[in-house]
Amino acid sequence: MKIGILTSGGDCPGLNAVIRGAVLRGVISHEAEFVGFRWGWRGVVQGDIVPLPRQEVRGLSRQGGTILHSSRTNPFEGEGGGPENIQRMLDENGIDAIIAIGGEGTLTAARRLVDEGGINVVGVPKTIDNDLAATDYSFGFDTAVEIATEAIDRLRTTADSHGRCMVVEVMGRHVGWIALHSGMAGGAHAILIPEQPMSIDEICHYVESVRDRGRAPVIVVAEGFKLTDMEAEHSHKGLDAFNRPRLGGIAELLAPMIEARTGIESRDTVLGHIQRGGAPSAYDRVLATRLGMAAVDAVKDQAWGEMVTLRGTDIARVSIREATGNLNTVPQSRYDEARVLFG
Amino acid sequence: MKIGILTSGGDCPGLNAVIRGAVLRGVISHEAEFVGFRWGWRGVVQGDIVPLPRQEVRGLSRQGGTILHSSRTNPFEGEGGGPENIQRMLDENGIDAIIAIGGEGTLTAARRLVDEGGINVVGVPKTIDNDLAATDYSFGFDTAVEIATEAIDRLRTTADSHGRCMVVEVMGRHVGWIALHSGMAGGAHAILIPEQPMSIDEICHYVESVRDRGRAPVIVVAEGFKLTDMEAEHSHKGLDAFNRPRLGGIAELLAPMIEARTGIESRDTVLGHIQRGGAPSAYDRVLATRLGMAAVDAVKDQAWGEMVTLRGTDIARVSIREATGNLNTVPQSRYDEARVLFG
Amino acid sequence: MKIGILTSGGDCPGLNAVIRGAVLRGVISHEAEFVGFRWGWRGVVQGDIVPLPRQEVRGLSRQGGTILHSSRTNPFEGEGGGPENIQRMLDENGIDAIIAIGGEGTLTAARRLVDEGGINVVGVPKTIDNDLAATDYSFGFDTAVEIATEAIDRLRTTADSHGRCMVVEVMGRHVGWIALHSGMAGGAHAILIPEQPMSIDEICHYVESVRDRGRAPVIVVAEGFKLTDMEAEHSHKGLDAFNRPRLGGIAELLAPMIEARTGIESRDTVLGHIQRGGAPSAYDRVLATRLGMAAVDAVKDQAWGEMVTLRGTDIARVSIREATGNLNTVPQSRYDEARVLFG
Amino acid sequence: MKIGILTSGGDCPGLNAVIRGAVLRGVISHEAEFVGFRWGWRGVVQGDIVPLPRQEVRGLSRQGGTILHSSRTNPFEGEGGGPENIQRMLDENGIDAIIAIGGEGTLTAARRLVDEGGINVVGVPKTIDNDLAATDYSFGFDTAVEIATEAIDRLRTTADSHGRCMVVEVMGRHVGWIALHSGMAGGAHAILIPEQPMSIDEICHYVESVRDRGRAPVIVVAEGFKLTDMEAEHSHKGLDAFNRPRLGGIAELLAPMIEARTGIESRDTVLGHIQRGGAPSAYDRVLATRLGMAAVDAVKDQAWGEMVTLRGTDIARVSIREATGNLNTVPQSRYDEARVLFG
Repeated sequence: MKIGILTSGGDCPGLNAVIRGAVLRGVISHEAEFVGFRWGWRGVVQGDIVPLPRQEVRGLSRQGGTILHSSRTNPFEGEGGGPENIQRMLDENGIDAIIAIGGEGTLTAARRLVDEGGINVVGVPKTIDNDLAATDYSFGFDTAVEIATEAIDRLRTTADSHGRCMVVEVMGRHVGWIALHSGMAGGAHAILIPEQPMSIDEICHYVESVRDRGRAPVIVVAEGFKLTDMEAEHSHKGLDAFNRPRLGGIAELLAPMIEARTGIESRDTVLGHIQRGGAPSAYDRVLATRLGMAAVDAVKDQAWGEMVTLRGTDIARVSIREATGNLNTVPQSRYDEARVLFG
Repeated sequence: MKIGILTSGGDCPGLNAVIRGAVLRGVISHEAEFVGFRWGWRGVVQGDIVPLPRQEVRGLSRQGGTILHSSRTNPFEGEGGGPENIQRMLDENGIDAIIAIGGEGTLTAARRLVDEGGINVVGVPKTIDNDLAATDYSFGFDTAVEIATEAIDRLRTTADSHGRCMVVEVMGRHVGWIALHSGMAGGAHAILIPEQPMSIDEICHYVESVRDRGRAPVIVVAEGFKLTDMEAEHSHKGLDAFNRPRLGGIAELLAPMIEARTGIESRDTVLGHIQRGGAPSAYDRVLATRLGMAAVDAVKDQAWGEMVTLRGTDIARVSIREATGNLNTVPQSRYDEARVLFG
Repeated sequence: MKIGILTSGGDCPGLNAVIRGAVLRGVISHEAEFVGFRWGWRGVVQGDIVPLPRQEVRGLSRQGGTILHSSRTNPFEGEGGGPENIQRMLDENGIDAIIAIGGEGTLTAARRLVDEGGINVVGVPKTIDNDLAATDYSFGFDTAVEIATEAIDRLRTTADSHGRCMVVEVMGRHVGWIALHSGMAGGAHAILIPEQPMSIDEICHYVESVRDRGRAPVIVVAEGFKLTDMEAEHSHKGLDAFNRPRLGGIAELLAPMIEARTGIESRDTVLGHIQRGGAPSAYDRVLATRLGMAAVDAVKDQAWGEMVTLRGTDIARVSIREATGNLNTVPQSRYDEARVLFG
Repeated sequence: MKIGILTSGGDCPGLNAVIRGAVLRGVISHEAEFVGFRWGWRGVVQGDIVPLPRQEVRGLSRQGGTILHSSRTNPFEGEGGGPENIQRMLDENGIDAIIAIGGEGTLTAARRLVDEGGINVVGVPKTIDNDLAATDYSFGFDTAVEIATEAIDRLRTTADSHGRCMVVEVMGRHVGWIALHSGMAGGAHAILIPEQPMSIDEICHYVESVRDRGRAPVIVVAEGFKLTDMEAEHSHKGLDAFNRPRLGGIAELLAPMIEARTGIESRDTVLGHIQRGGAPSAYDRVLATRLGMAAVDAVKDQAWGEMVTLRGTDIARVSIREATGNLNTVPQSRYDEARVLFG
């Protein structure tokens, strides 16, 4: 059995641990052989293939990024793309199955390759935002929350020293999990997430309430958060609160609005890429290793079109078809739980 | 409503976050008032009580240890002990209910106080070893695994530089969860846990297999691991492999045995107390905060004799009676999963 | 002897350790009594004074920020300002001397208060940028370099995974020490500092050279770096490389310029305030503690107008007059040393 | 010019950064070629040589341990040892000079090879204990202090929670620098170092004084510390305070003695090997890189018998003859400075 692995989309702490877990499990338990497709689906459509013997995955569990590189190539597009070309490439290289590690887009493409082309693919979900409904948690999320929390811990001392409001922007385009968890862990005074649009007035209400208790407000905002009111719309059209053209993110928008309305000096910090790079947390290494091992077992079981997931403390399998298309949003109950800590 | 909180048994990262979560939830949502019993049950039987207003829990989510201190006092023993005395103390201080944060012993005592004395107690499980069956994970465990994993990462470079075998002893008296997760995360070549006694021959087999692949072996051993064979029994009686009297732990026993049998220079490291102190990981802060909040809700609901637990991503309640008495051991399937990575 | 302490200007890891070192040294060795002026010089001119007994400084060596708060108030301005008012306030409160912890501006003000008003002041230099020539290193700098280095380590894995160029902006308005040290520690492929303006062509030369060796370029840039060439001037006037209005920092300017010229996908990350908050490194705790202790000794010796500094491994004293006015720039030899690693 | 590098003695964070700095400087600035001797001097006497091209040192600045491995082989002993054999091996392999990275023993051997055999050797001092007088600081020391400080921070929360005395043993056989700096950074209540023997009575005096102020004592002890009094001598002969046979280190000796005399529950923690493994701090990466580069410059200048050192902020050279033989002990003034914080 010869298995090809690819990593697709944005990088995520734990990708290498998935690769290592898969290769070790396959080599030791199933006498499988492994190759890597480089640069995600691009390696599939271009036949950019490297051998992945056991010694290549040495020490990978603690290494950030992906040794196979990644891109956003779509396997249905361009020369070499589409099920027929891909099957031919697999045949030419004697590859029996693909383990595709990626997000919503990658998994959907994987499913289509199974359904439309009969390609042997199993999936491993990768979403640092934790926005896939089919898994309790996805690897990389814990590391991102840990990094964001450390940053909030640091920013708090500056807020306190200067009596400032600090607005911290974390990842989360469509869902607010990183903001929710890091904000709760870091003791934020408001957590702003895409699922819960809020008015600038309400945000300033929290900020002033904190100030009135003699403390310095710390606000955590997910990049996908939207304001509900008019001024914000205006701002979204390209002008900030001081009528200056605006290119930045939500934190850069909020800080001057908060300062203008409350009189509290406010600063924004955008954590950006540091949340997704570097060594994974122990939690993510364990989860990623287990998912990688389970993916090989899925290949062994010919569970094409399925992906591996975390359910409680167990690794399970679900049909990719059922798993995709459902955004794992922060439920109201979890937000209400956190909201107790606001202000 | 006036609620008293106590922390009992060994300290654990997240205890303060539980206290903070409980106080904030109670003060803000239920207009409750809080006091702390100092030094665990000792504060209950001796009436050593401090007020816990909101400002006292400021910043506690990231602070290790417990501001209420802890001890191993049994509430059924000594002057002031027993349900009647305790109920009298509660009445005198106008305290309506107790939130008891502790392990198996504390929870069992809590249940007896409910059953035998009609005392209003709810429990929060605390076990850094993760050995309570009623909860998927307990707070503090993730932090301990993270610290152990960082130590393994560090020790590996020394092992590699000198071609040595490093034996790392982590916590885990009755169960091997910390060893399993940190060993998996750190890429250990053997993980030795109480649930899986092993012979020194088998351990040396893994060590030599690693050496033969040109690498330096790293062995993670839980403090409660037992060897299966004769020499070990001999050693356990008080003499080590060189017939010297022995007082130390299992790592101190194993390292010279491995060196004597394999000829590979071997060193032991006992992580000890550094695994249980200091700032909790973000994961543990979130879990502990949620458990603290849920404990107050349980008080509100008069769910006496119940404790709060993690089930998947949800906080649930179970009867303490059902929750205790079942050790959460590492199941065979999880050990088999990890064993693939051995040698 | 009653001594007042103030912290002025931007916060810096180690401020609290200076306060603790001073108070413990003074209380234990010199039977001194301490008060704190809140919010820097503002506390002096407004008489905002808090007692600083020994128990208040407990645990402060590891705590970021400043418990005395800080501001940029000038002691020569406003009601209550100026030497006469300040001396009157000191007399009214029985305060014999001031320890002023701050940067160039604070130290200059301190010197003027000594020279023009005969006020008893000694200084402790604070500059996270390490831009004061009178001290080998200043506390906070090591922590900032450590945080920046960790960020670079993380960003590198993303760069490698995606074949991207990462541009990391670190602190350093007038001098490039943080960029130099973090860039050297993190293995950056180019380090851009205020002392060494460079053309975008030269930068792109390094970027392409790295790409041609099959690697992903990581560029560290100090916030005060200036491009030498025309396009940059144009950009500095308010338009970026795509003729969009520009408000951001230098990294935000460079990344799209590099991408446009080299075709290598480029991303910027601005570390910002996380570099100056949070727990100080052990190095900074030791340095800050020693400086605080030495400042009290300077008060004991009536060394008014002097400040404490690090020289090699010793704490020394210099006249503030001589110490200020000389920017501690990165010397050519240190930059040449680092430049070997470029490209 | 072909240069051979070796690393000798115990591993130390920064060894790989020295190697990388040397190779990059040599390849880029001096068109030198590099090889590595494996396993310290053993690689020299056995001719165990590996090529060290530029790509081999990629990413090494942040990697703990030494890719060249290390041992305690003496180059004057055994087959292949001695100046004549070594010169012959160098000639056969076309190697012009050796960069020897090691401690007192290695440097002394290097000097003898120069003096007695005319071998071209320059030295780089390596001592994690910081016990070489010729350099202000040596690489690895800062990392060890940082790790010890983090451990002390963690142990303090356990001490406080349980009202216990924690005794932490850190490295330092002959000198107490790691104990002094980590103890000062971590706020220890007593720092016990080889240079300052103390009686158990004095130690217990500090412990009780801390307890009487309502706090939990934290004691940092260097492994080489010696008690001054009789009971200790007795214990050193092999029996602990309870007349049990004793094999462990000084912390294991002290904790029960403190508990027996003060009645305060006491626990020991031995940090051991975790202090010397793993990624170096940014400080050590910069220092090690600079030393590596300077060592190549020394080779270029044919400065045989000299070693590179840190003096203030500069890298300098000294004769190995002058540099060795002087232990860099903690001076009385530095200990007195720290002693203010005791009790």
